[in-house]
Amino acid sequence: MLELTIELKTGSAKCLYEQIYEHIRKEIKEGKLLQGERLPSTRLLAENLQVARSTVELAYEQLLSEGYIESQPYRGYFVSKVEELFRLEGKKEKDIGKTTLKEAFSTDVDYIYDFSPTQIDMSRFPFSVWRKLHKNVLSDGNEKLYAQGNARGDYGLRENIARYLHASRGVNCTPEQIIVGAGNDYLLMLLEKILGPQIPIAMENPTYKRAYQIFQSFGYPITTVDMDENGMRVEELRKIDVRLVYVMPSHQYPTGVVMPIGRRGELLKWANEQADRYLIEDDYDSEFRYKGKPIPSLQASDKNDRVIYIGTFSKSIAPAIRVSYMVLPMKLVETYERKCAFYSTTVSRIEQKILDEFIREGYFERHLNKMRKCYKDKHDYMLELLEDFKKCFIITGENAGLHLLLTSKKNVSEETLIELAKLQGVKVYGLSESYVGGRNKENRGTVILGYGGMSKQEIEEGIQALRKAWL
Amino acid sequence: MLELTIELKTGSAKCLYEQIYEHIRKEIKEGKLLQGERLPSTRLLAENLQVARSTVELAYEQLLSEGYIESQPYRGYFVSKVEELFRLEGKKEKDIGKTTLKEAFSTDVDYIYDFSPTQIDMSRFPFSVWRKLHKNVLSDGNEKLYAQGNARGDYGLRENIARYLHASRGVNCTPEQIIVGAGNDYLLMLLEKILGPQIPIAMENPTYKRAYQIFQSFGYPITTVDMDENGMRVEELRKIDVRLVYVMPSHQYPTGVVMPIGRRGELLKWANEQADRYLIEDDYDSEFRYKGKPIPSLQASDKNDRVIYIGTFSKSIAPAIRVSYMVLPMKLVETYERKCAFYSTTVSRIEQKILDEFIREGYFERHLNKMRKCYKDKHDYMLELLEDFKKCFIITGENAGLHLLLTSKKNVSEETLIELAKLQGVKVYGLSESYVGGRNKENRGTVILGYGGMSKQEIEEGIQALRKAWL
Repeated sequence: MLELTIELKTGSAKCLYEQIYEHIRKEIKEGKLLQGERLPSTRLLAENLQVARSTVELAYEQLLSEGYIESQPYRGYFVSKVEELFRLEGKKEKDIGKTTLKEAFSTDVDYIYDFSPTQIDMSRFPFSVWRKLHKNVLSDGNEKLYAQGNARGDYGLRENIARYLHASRGVNCTPEQIIVGAGNDYLLMLLEKILGPQIPIAMENPTYKRAYQIFQSFGYPITTVDMDENGMRVEELRKIDVRLVYVMPSHQYPTGVVMPIGRRGELLKWANEQADRYLIEDDYDSEFRYKGKPIPSLQASDKNDRVIYIGTFSKSIAPAIRVSYMVLPMKLVETYERKCAFYSTTVSRIEQKILDEFIREGYFERHLNKMRKCYKDKHDYMLELLEDFKKCFIITGENAGLHLLLTSKKNVSEETLIELAKLQGVKVYGLSESYVGGRNKENRGTVILGYGGMSKQEIEEGIQALRKAWL
Repeated sequence: MLELTIELKTGSAKCLYEQIYEHIRKEIKEGKLLQGERLPSTRLLAENLQVARSTVELAYEQLLSEGYIESQPYRGYFVSKVEELFRLEGKKEKDIGKTTLKEAFSTDVDYIYDFSPTQIDMSRFPFSVWRKLHKNVLSDGNEKLYAQGNARGDYGLRENIARYLHASRGVNCTPEQIIVGAGNDYLLMLLEKILGPQIPIAMENPTYKRAYQIFQSFGYPITTVDMDENGMRVEELRKIDVRLVYVMPSHQYPTGVVMPIGRRGELLKWANEQADRYLIEDDYDSEFRYKGKPIPSLQASDKNDRVIYIGTFSKSIAPAIRVSYMVLPMKLVETYERKCAFYSTTVSRIEQKILDEFIREGYFERHLNKMRKCYKDKHDYMLELLEDFKKCFIITGENAGLHLLLTSKKNVSEETLIELAKLQGVKVYGLSESYVGGRNKENRGTVILGYGGMSKQEIEEGIQALRKAWL
C-alpha cells in the first residue's frame, strides 16, 4: 500500500480536509498517484497525519464524490481509472445537474467569501429546543409514532399548517387539502401524478432553475414568459397555449419582484377562463419580508379553486428538515384521492410530530421572528455597505428574502464581474444562471449576492473585497 | 352548539375512541346529526365524556379521514354535506387507492383478529437504543447535520448499506450506485425519471399491488406474466414486447415462491439480449428466511449491469423509518447524474446519521437476528396450529416472510372463506386482491394469513376462531 506524505498547514485559510483533498487530487491529476493504486485507509492516514479520522473521511468523500477515487467493499479506496476521470472532468462543464455534491460543502475550495443565495443562517437555530422535542416525542407511550402514518401527513400537523398558513399567509384551506411531503421536489413529482403527463406550462424568465429542471424532467413542454416590474406579463401569457403556470408572486426568485394585486387579479382571471387551468404558487422565502406590510399569498385571493400552493420548512427552519407542504384546490384533492392516495408518505411520523410540537408550542413563530430580525440586520447592513456601489450599480430585490441583485450601470458584463470578484476570493452568482436559455438578454451584467449564510463580519469583509474588485 | 350524549362501555372489545367514532358516524348516517351542524370541540366533548382529549381527537380524526365531518380553521368541526358523504361512500367500493387512511388504524373496527400481511411486530423494537442514538446524533458539534445533504444520500450511510447488502444479500455495488430515498414509492418515482416515460413493463401475476398501482400511475404499459412454481415464466415473457421486468425473486409477494437459480439465469439472459432491458428486483422481506440457507439476491448473479435492486428499512426496522435504497447499474448511475442529480434528497441527514450509527454499531444486525427468531417462532407456531387445517387446505408460502397462504382443497371460494372468517370476527385477506384483473383464475379459494403484527396469543385465538369458521 501507498504511503502519502502531506504537509498540513494549521492556521491556513483552508481547513485540514481541504488540504488533504487538494493534495491527493493534485497527485492524481499529475499522475503521481496511478490509476488503480490503493490509498491508505482513513484510519492509517489519520494516524500518519495526526488528524482526526473524520477529517480524512471528509477529504476522501469529496474525492469520491468528484470521481477521483473509488471505494471497493472490503478492499478500500483506489485511484479511479484515468479515462473515467477525464470523462468526468469534461462532463462537468456542461452538466446542469452537477452541483449537488459540491453544494454539500459550505464553501467552495477556491473562495474566501461565498455570497451564496441558497445558504441560510443556522447559528441561531434552537438546537436545545429541538433536542428536547426529540426526547419528548421519543419517550415511552409514543410507540404508535413508529407506525406508518397517513399518506397525506398526520392530521394534527396538517391542521397546524393550515392554521399557520391562514394566519401568516392568508391561505384558505382545510387540513384535507394539505399534503405533507419530503421536500418541494417530491411534492412536484406527486403533483405530476395528480395533473397528468405532458402538461404545457409557463414559467417566469428568469426563474428558479431547479423547478425548471424538474418540469423538464417530467417532459412538460415549458414556455417562458418575460417579466416586467410587476412580474409575469399576462398579455404575453395569453399569446401562448398552456394550462399551468409556475409563479413566485410574493418574492420572485431571483429578481425579488413582488407581484401587485392588479397583476395577481389578471393572472387569476386567466386561470379561471378555462376549466383545467391551474397556477402553482411557490411561496418561497415569503417568511422574510423586512419593509411594508406582509403580502398575502396568491392563494388568498383565489375564489375559484385555481391555485396550488407550495411551501417548505427546509428554508424557514433547517435544510435537514425535509418537510414541505402542498395545498391542493378541492377539485384536485379528489383527483389525488382517486389517482395517488396509494403513495406512502415520505415523512416519518416522528419527524412530523416533532415539527407539530415545534409549531404548536410557539417555537416556530418565535424562531421566525428571530430569523426575520437576523436577516433584516444583515440586509440593512448590506445596503449600508453597498452605498458607494450605487454610483456603478443599480441595487434591486431588496426588502425581502435572502439576497440582493447588483446590475452594472457601466455595461460591465456578468462574466467580468464574476471573474473580478473571483480574483479577490469572492464568489458571486450570475443572474444568467437563472435564465432559461442560459443568458440574460440585457447587456448590463447582473450578479446575485446572497447574505443568508454569512455573518456580518464576513459580509463586511466580502463587500470590502468586492469594492476592490469592482469600484 | 350541539350536545352529544354517548354511552361509553369500558371493558368492551372496542376501545373508547372507536365507540365515539361509531356513535357519531351512526348519528350522521341516520340523519340525527344534520349536515353543516357543528360538533362540540374536542376539549368540551372530552370533559363531558370524562375521557382524555386525545381519545376524542382520534375519533374526530377517523371521522374526518372518512369524510363524515370537516374542520374549518378557527370555527371547529362540522358534519359534512350529505351529497358529499354519499359520494364518498359510493366511491369507496371501487376505489383502489382508498386504503391509506384506514390502514393507519391497526385493527379494523369490525374485527377482533386481523391477519394483516403488512403489519410488523414493533414490540421488540429497541426503543431505548433508538432514543440514545437520537440523543448522541443531536448533541453539540453535529450542527452540520442540519444542512442539506448529498442528493443520493450521505456517503457514510451508502457505504454502510453497500457493506450490509454485500454481506447479507451478495449484492455487488459501490456506494456511488446507491440512492437513498424516503420509501420505495419515492424511489420508483425517481426511477421513472431515470428510465423515461411510457416504458413497457412486465409484472408477475399475482403481484405486489402497490407497485402495480405505481407503474400504472406512471402510464407504463403493464403486461402480466403468469407464474409457475419457479416464479415468472420466462417463455411467456419472451412472447411479449417489454423492456422492463419487476420481480421479487427471493420471496415473491404474495405467493411466497422462491425463484431457483435456473430461472434466474433465464431471466438474466433475457435481459442481456437487448441493450435497454432491465430487471427491477424488489428484495422485499428477504431478511426473514427461516429454513434452508439464505438465497442471494438476483443482483448478485448479474454480470451485465441489468438489475436495479430495491430494498427498505421500513419493514426491517420500523414503518416510521422512511428510508429505502436503490442500487443502480453503473450505466444508469450515469443517466441519473445527467438527468436527475438536481433532485434534492428526501431524507434528512439527521435521520440518515441515526440509521448509519444503528447499522455501524451492530444494532441492526442484532435487531434482525432477534426479529428473524421472533417471526420464525410465530411462523412455526402458525404451522403447528394449522396442522388440522391440512385436511381441507393446502398451505404454501412457508419458510420465509411474514405470511402464509391457505388454499381450499374443497373448492370453497375465497369470498366464502373471507365471509365465514368475518362472522367469527377474524379478518383474512383474499389472494384475488393481488391479482391484476382482480381475480384468481383458480376456482379454489386462497386466503393470506399474515402473522407479523400479531402476538402468539392472538395467533392462537385467531386460528381457533378460523377453525370454527372453516373446519
